[in-house]
Amino acid sequence: MKAQPLPDLSRCAVHTVTTKPWPIGTAIEKYARAGFGGITVWRDTLVGRDPLVVGKQIRDAGLRNTALVRGGFFCYGNEEERAKALEDNRLALREAEATGAPMVVLVCGARPEQSLGESREQIRDGIAELLPEAEARGVVLAIEPLHPMYADTRSAVNTLASANDMAEGLDSPWVGLAVDVYHLWWDPDLYAQIRRCGKNGNLTAFHVCDWRVPTEDFLLDRGLMGEGCIDVPGIRAVVEEAGFTGFNEVEIFSKRRWEGDQDAWLADIARACREAV
Amino acid sequence: MKAQPLPDLSRCAVHTVTTKPWPIGTAIEKYARAGFGGITVWRDTLVGRDPLVVGKQIRDAGLRNTALVRGGFFCYGNEEERAKALEDNRLALREAEATGAPMVVLVCGARPEQSLGESREQIRDGIAELLPEAEARGVVLAIEPLHPMYADTRSAVNTLASANDMAEGLDSPWVGLAVDVYHLWWDPDLYAQIRRCGKNGNLTAFHVCDWRVPTEDFLLDRGLMGEGCIDVPGIRAVVEEAGFTGFNEVEIFSKRRWEGDQDAWLADIARACREAV
Repeated sequence: MKAQPLPDLSRCAVHTVTTKPWPIGTAIEKYARAGFGGITVWRDTLVGRDPLVVGKQIRDAGLRNTALVRGGFFCYGNEEERAKALEDNRLALREAEATGAPMVVLVCGARPEQSLGESREQIRDGIAELLPEAEARGVVLAIEPLHPMYADTRSAVNTLASANDMAEGLDSPWVGLAVDVYHLWWDPDLYAQIRRCGKNGNLTAFHVCDWRVPTEDFLLDRGLMGEGCIDVPGIRAVVEEAGFTGFNEVEIFSKRRWEGDQDAWLADIARACREAV
Repeated sequence: MKAQPLPDLSRCAVHTVTTKPWPIGTAIEKYARAGFGGITVWRDTLVGRDPLVVGKQIRDAGLRNTALVRGGFFCYGNEEERAKALEDNRLALREAEATGAPMVVLVCGARPEQSLGESREQIRDGIAELLPEAEARGVVLAIEPLHPMYADTRSAVNTLASANDMAEGLDSPWVGLAVDVYHLWWDPDLYAQIRRCGKNGNLTAFHVCDWRVPTEDFLLDRGLMGEGCIDVPGIRAVVEEAGFTGFNEVEIFSKRRWEGDQDAWLADIARACREAV
């Protein structure tokens, strides 16, 4: 089964990291002009700026702020690291509220010095500790399971099953899940796990890109939808069947694309959203 | 839980690809002299050699031939590719028999042009078709689930659960499973799936190495046991608890190690087998 092609870009958003060379103001203006309905804000674009002002710019441009990216990295070796991680996540929640983002996406963290099981406990405890602040700010904490190739230092949550377990254990309306096709496309259990998180009301974000063949870099060689081997329309069909009505968020880390003309790149993204999402 | 340290190298084997610069004769001599109990033969070392002679050299050196690596790549786009894949696997079975290897390890294959589900069907059908030949040669076909980062072109079998499903479906004494810590260490379901395949009598091989932090190459940057973040003794404990009594096979693709002195490298491997397996 494939999803119906999107009629326009009103339900598509672009992560600002996708057009990394652009400052946030340029990204807002260009995304809106191209017809995208939303923008996902990477926190590094906020450095030196007032998040309230950025939030107003986004609204004035007619864009929805889909999410603030990223919080997380909950794993620690000592109390100081633990406190620092929580403080940074509290800051992310305040920035999300100020910019008008309904959620903070979590790259949960991992430490090669400890087992993945220990890391997952620290992650769960960290999220639990933040829930009152999330509720006070009206901002969801969205766990994003990461590809197993990032299990060493980036996230100990590497399957949607594992993320579902964690979200169900936390059992809070302020916990959600971000399904990113890049991280999860290979999982034979993916469709069942998408249905599970839809059923439990935890499916809060859907990220699209593609897996290039061959992929040449662990971090910065993601593909545009349609140029790799991920069945994006097939996954979107299941995501929507599971009740998801949010944005298709384009998140592409690509050194080669960042080196090229960003206007042409955004035009390619717009076309791919219509033809390959 | 951790496994007890190995008292000696009698239950350790080295894959010849680990010391890639050495021709097979040198590898046999050096592994035996270092005290390893076994050798795993990469097929490229057999090119231009009589496998019967190589088999005799291995036995004469007092080594066990643990496995022939590798068969598989069952996925195809047309009938010609399908026939070619089967023919190559039949050749692998004959080479295994001739060299005295009890199994052929399968890198099952994947094609980015088709879904992983379709690829898995082709893999299962390919193995099923080879079973009479495997039985005739007395050689097990060992499915090796590969890390999800290889799901594009190398294998559509990316978890031990998926491999267990396939092996149980094929339900033959001539089908086995190869558990490689590099491919599976991140899986929260790993221990349960190891117990499952032990219980069903399908656990036929155990491969060790480590995941370097950071890993810089998708293929050729594996680590020596103890220099990365994989809990090898922890996984070995579960593997042995599940009834496995075979070899700890060292399989390390490492460009940096291949560039160095191979005698020193083998000494490092011997030490790591004693201290970090």
